[in-house]
Amino acid sequence: MEGTLDGGVVRVGGDARQRFYDSSGYGRPDGAGVTLAPVEAAHLLFRDDLDAVDGMGLREFLAATNCVVRFLVYKDFRERGFYLSPAREGRVDADDAHANTDLVVYPQGNGPWDDEIAYRVRVVGERAAVPASDLGDSVLAVVDEESELTYLDTSRPQMAGSTDYEPQTGIAADLLEDRVVLWDPPQNLYERAFYGQRLAGRGATDGPLQLSLVEAAFLAREGVLTIDGGSETLVERGRAVEGERFDRRLAVYATLRRSGLVPKTGFKLGADFRTYANVESVENLGHSEHLVRVLPPDYVFGPRELSLDVRLAGGVHKRMTFALTDTSEGIDWLAVERITP
Amino acid sequence: MEGTLDGGVVRVGGDARQRFYDSSGYGRPDGAGVTLAPVEAAHLLFRDDLDAVDGMGLREFLAATNCVVRFLVYKDFRERGFYLSPAREGRVDADDAHANTDLVVYPQGNGPWDDEIAYRVRVVGERAAVPASDLGDSVLAVVDEESELTYLDTSRPQMAGSTDYEPQTGIAADLLEDRVVLWDPPQNLYERAFYGQRLAGRGATDGPLQLSLVEAAFLAREGVLTIDGGSETLVERGRAVEGERFDRRLAVYATLRRSGLVPKTGFKLGADFRTYANVESVENLGHSEHLVRVLPPDYVFGPRELSLDVRLAGGVHKRMTFALTDTSEGIDWLAVERITP
Repeated sequence: MEGTLDGGVVRVGGDARQRFYDSSGYGRPDGAGVTLAPVEAAHLLFRDDLDAVDGMGLREFLAATNCVVRFLVYKDFRERGFYLSPAREGRVDADDAHANTDLVVYPQGNGPWDDEIAYRVRVVGERAAVPASDLGDSVLAVVDEESELTYLDTSRPQMAGSTDYEPQTGIAADLLEDRVVLWDPPQNLYERAFYGQRLAGRGATDGPLQLSLVEAAFLAREGVLTIDGGSETLVERGRAVEGERFDRRLAVYATLRRSGLVPKTGFKLGADFRTYANVESVENLGHSEHLVRVLPPDYVFGPRELSLDVRLAGGVHKRMTFALTDTSEGIDWLAVERITP
Repeated sequence: MEGTLDGGVVRVGGDARQRFYDSSGYGRPDGAGVTLAPVEAAHLLFRDDLDAVDGMGLREFLAATNCVVRFLVYKDFRERGFYLSPAREGRVDADDAHANTDLVVYPQGNGPWDDEIAYRVRVVGERAAVPASDLGDSVLAVVDEESELTYLDTSRPQMAGSTDYEPQTGIAADLLEDRVVLWDPPQNLYERAFYGQRLAGRGATDGPLQLSLVEAAFLAREGVLTIDGGSETLVERGRAVEGERFDRRLAVYATLRRSGLVPKTGFKLGADFRTYANVESVENLGHSEHLVRVLPPDYVFGPRELSLDVRLAGGVHKRMTFALTDTSEGIDWLAVERITP
């Protein structure tokens, strides 16, 4: 059976509708024939279900149509038992909300004649630039340089916890370079609410408490700490050592604390924060659920750095979560996790 | 017992030599007394072995001397049972090769009166800029914003393997966007030497082979592949999609292959390559030992990204290895791994 390439699609006549669309969800019905997108035609050529398109076999067809990256993803979903359709040939409504969708994947057992959708997939090579603002309701399929596939599911998580603690106010604090020490802290600030860490180390149950600049700036703005020069002294020190990134991190820290979550440094895991949803005491600390990286809202990911963050978070059973903010307009949360469709 | 601050060091008289130096390795003998570096005096104040320095307790002393970050590392080594000396007060020869050493740590049971050294430690806050060229024979002690410590041992590894394979020459290759396909490859190129991957997937034992641009450019320069326009067509495509980073990656790939190692993509682990030391066949592939990231020689690390890479590599039992090269002068290898002293 042969097809003809015409205006970016492949037309196949004869009983192609029955053979390709009705029985296996390829293409769009066109009388008794079908219209195929290039990736669909490539897959039928690969399977030897189609003999040629305008005389071309798979080798010539891939060279002529520039669809190899999408073909690899299309083929992978087919091999996993899914039917799917390209989103960009007028086949699936490409409404504004899903303008970046390349492939629409139906639940196993369903096809283009059903309404249900399992995944909206965006296909990129590992060298693509992926704006953070494009993500949140789709699966990013990354084809790496060796043509291995990585699927990253993106979503907009709710960040909420149930940690509840009302600290006393007016605690004296010292600024020492880029950290803060409370020489005579109230007992519960650390033990109950997990602010800072004891100068004497993990085992200690009293004595001076060290705070990060972001912890201290938050507590000072809340009136919990008093410091020479006021809370803005801490914010200024933060800006001096981190630039405007400090303001973004402080905004995210404050939002997390006010949402009942406890953010602690994510340094050992290469992130800004790890978060605990419900701290009753440091002694009985649960597992931290999110790894948070703070980014400006116009941030553009490289797939490789995304792969790094997501792989590390997965390895320690946390959810990689990006906090996108310019501090003035609230925070957009973006969770990314690796999936196997 | 009290000390006096004088020209950046603390002098303690009386029987301080016996009490502090002879019995516990603090300071430098000065008659019957000792001269202490600020971190040493701070630690003695912290332990209440020293009552005051010029009337100052620990709180005032730390505020006056700006040594809190180094103090935290000094204190941690002491708590782990090590004696150590600051390297920058003329105490330990600060020769050129170790110009970045802050603390010299002696093996447990040894002290400043011995010659042996366990670790040369460089102390940085998490916001420091750390040039790659400064690393390679020292331990980087990173004090994060919450004053937790991370120790990163740096070394210059030998990169060598024993993979041995002589491919045939003159294999025809097609360039498809940013990847290469061999439609009729010799059987062993994949199975024996782990070049590329089968188009039909992991299980396939024959059929077309996909190569990355870097694999293909290396093989084309070796005369193994022939391609329209010659091997430089592949290099030019590489530069078009990656810039000069492609030349660095190709130089590293070629050096690894010529050293008997097999580099494959490190994309899923956020790196450039993972490497296998001894490939006899893809069917019986061993564990890959190194994760390689390619960087320019003047690269400056942020401790947080270093922490991310090293943590991920450790989690998958690989050694994080940086390949520093500008392509013209060979490659400097730098391995970084987390240690607990």
